[in-house]
Amino acid sequence: MDYNQLSLEMHEKLVGKIAVISKAPVKTKEDLSIAYTPGVAEPCKRIEANPEDVYRYTAKSNLIAVVSNGTAVLGLGNIGAAASIPVMEGKCVLFKEFGNVEAFPICLDTQDPDEVVRIVKAMEPVFGGINLEDIAAPACFEIEEKLKKMLNIPVFHDDQHGTAIVTVAAVVNALKLTGKKISDITAVINGSGAAGNSIAGMLTEMGIGDLLMCDRKGIISRNRQDLDPYKKKLSLTTNKANLEGALADAMKGADIFIGVSAPGVVTKDMVRSMNDKAIVLPMANPIPEIMPEEAREAGAYIIGTGRSDFPNQVNNVLAFPGVFRGALDVRASDINEAMKIAAAKALADAVGDKLSVDMILPLAFDTGYMEQVAQAVKQAAIESGVARI
Amino acid sequence: MDYNQLSLEMHEKLVGKIAVISKAPVKTKEDLSIAYTPGVAEPCKRIEANPEDVYRYTAKSNLIAVVSNGTAVLGLGNIGAAASIPVMEGKCVLFKEFGNVEAFPICLDTQDPDEVVRIVKAMEPVFGGINLEDIAAPACFEIEEKLKKMLNIPVFHDDQHGTAIVTVAAVVNALKLTGKKISDITAVINGSGAAGNSIAGMLTEMGIGDLLMCDRKGIISRNRQDLDPYKKKLSLTTNKANLEGALADAMKGADIFIGVSAPGVVTKDMVRSMNDKAIVLPMANPIPEIMPEEAREAGAYIIGTGRSDFPNQVNNVLAFPGVFRGALDVRASDINEAMKIAAAKALADAVGDKLSVDMILPLAFDTGYMEQVAQAVKQAAIESGVARI
Repeated sequence: MDYNQLSLEMHEKLVGKIAVISKAPVKTKEDLSIAYTPGVAEPCKRIEANPEDVYRYTAKSNLIAVVSNGTAVLGLGNIGAAASIPVMEGKCVLFKEFGNVEAFPICLDTQDPDEVVRIVKAMEPVFGGINLEDIAAPACFEIEEKLKKMLNIPVFHDDQHGTAIVTVAAVVNALKLTGKKISDITAVINGSGAAGNSIAGMLTEMGIGDLLMCDRKGIISRNRQDLDPYKKKLSLTTNKANLEGALADAMKGADIFIGVSAPGVVTKDMVRSMNDKAIVLPMANPIPEIMPEEAREAGAYIIGTGRSDFPNQVNNVLAFPGVFRGALDVRASDINEAMKIAAAKALADAVGDKLSVDMILPLAFDTGYMEQVAQAVKQAAIESGVARI
Repeated sequence: MDYNQLSLEMHEKLVGKIAVISKAPVKTKEDLSIAYTPGVAEPCKRIEANPEDVYRYTAKSNLIAVVSNGTAVLGLGNIGAAASIPVMEGKCVLFKEFGNVEAFPICLDTQDPDEVVRIVKAMEPVFGGINLEDIAAPACFEIEEKLKKMLNIPVFHDDQHGTAIVTVAAVVNALKLTGKKISDITAVINGSGAAGNSIAGMLTEMGIGDLLMCDRKGIISRNRQDLDPYKKKLSLTTNKANLEGALADAMKGADIFIGVSAPGVVTKDMVRSMNDKAIVLPMANPIPEIMPEEAREAGAYIIGTGRSDFPNQVNNVLAFPGVFRGALDVRASDINEAMKIAAAKALADAVGDKLSVDMILPLAFDTGYMEQVAQAVKQAAIESGVARI
């Protein structure tokens, strides 16, 4: 199917994929006096007197902002705020349809990370949460870090943490099938941008044996002089033996390859050099680091990609609606590591009896997994002390 | 009826008066590929190549932001962004229900006018128009002026121009009933904040005989040394004889009194001192400058207030939905004086045969006037060269 053409036609027909509607009836003078003046002054006064009442009388408790400045949109690069809107509206659609979370696109025409921070901070009153989207690394780290400190509502960068949650869920289930323990294995992550960073953080938190991060220049070691602060930090928590070398060197004997990088950078020989029962997750989209059939020929045991036309699609939609559903339901002030790990484990568990090498993750339209993720996130929020109701 | 209690209950039941919904079906894998990746890349690329296509493929063409920083909310004062949300959501409801204009509340936690300007500028890509609301004077003038210069979409401060359009419509029809010509009369405006300023501008543009602006200190004359830049500007375009004195002095012999000030500041004696067939519009809300029955006793010929429980309610809802409907329909880059005057005249004309001293304006739930206003605004946008389609 020509999705490009169908998509164009659909967008033109709908003129936007979201709509803002009124829930309040306004058919009579009395309706008007209740929904608007003079009656509306009363909820205003209540909120002024008790700021938490904003959750009671406004849309805030189920409303998030999908915030982007269009600097890293899909694989299209820095296309700007206006051109990013169809993606952000699409994200809002998915939040609503999969998680019953209302979301509104905030596409900001600025390339200055501090400006993004200031704007989102100022907009906090209206929203119950912030989903950052398609903001280029390393600005995305800085923006997220600052906002997490400044805001009382959860801030989540889906390209980092959504991808990480689903990837970790895939790893958890793949390990079950291989019989390997996470503490015994070595994983290689190629790509140390938004997603790679968060995947590394979660796997480290879960006690992975060893982890080798690679970027365009090869393995991130503590000897490298060219590392930005985020990569420097990664170099301290990964690569126990402080190995140096290329991606091919990193992959020798590794148990897992995770690709969040570029098309075709992994060869069959590299896959052949991995440990037995190799788990290969080349997630570059639309063209993976190595095509599934090639990875299979080279002996990979489990293969997952970002694409819907192969088995084991690592698809963010499996996570973000449920994560925010759970966070909003307990008015969480944060989405922390414990909540992300709980989400990943719940997502892995949701596969249940169907678990097989070609089914390590639920499918987007499966029923039940979203509620399980939301429930796990809620529970973890309560246990980690960030739930506020 | 206890609107306060009913309003609280309604707000708590609905948990917010607006909702963001999805217009795109997402029931199958194919739906997902069209509404989101990979298909969504195509409208993104089109917009990147041709920025005007943002109107074609996103919600922009029928979506406005209702922007406030909560510094002058209803009669409640500077209650802040969060406490202003019920009003802004209410405004969004009215836009949708009366004008089929989609509107989203942007309540900004900042008291710095330049910060408001920067934020709204950055958010421009998503919206087809900006409605400023409940921002204190004189910051509201500065914010509006700067944004009008910077943005390619219309910027409208409803507290100024919405009120002015409806007030001018009332004046137009009241003059018809008195048989007086606008070029022959003198009007007094008490209150030289947001609304007073814009009413003065429109009446001046329409060739009013003379206009006396008053503030708390009395008539604004060119001799006064205490005027801010906005009042100074007013002093140059009003008060032909450069009169000095109190409000009572201004009202002697005046044909029209327009109050956008404070409860009870007008006495029966002041109304008695006006010209024959006096038009008295005391619009302070909820308690007018003089109560209608008192004004009547003092000889006022036509009386209008801001309240729905008296005849001749000067209600902004008569204007703003139609004004934006018209502006959005021709993708106007501005809402200019010509469009505002066209709106006021259309609104006055919409009363038609029903015109009487107790019916100088349509009622909010009358049919037809909104379309007439929208049509007039559209036409004026085309004729004044700001229509873009």
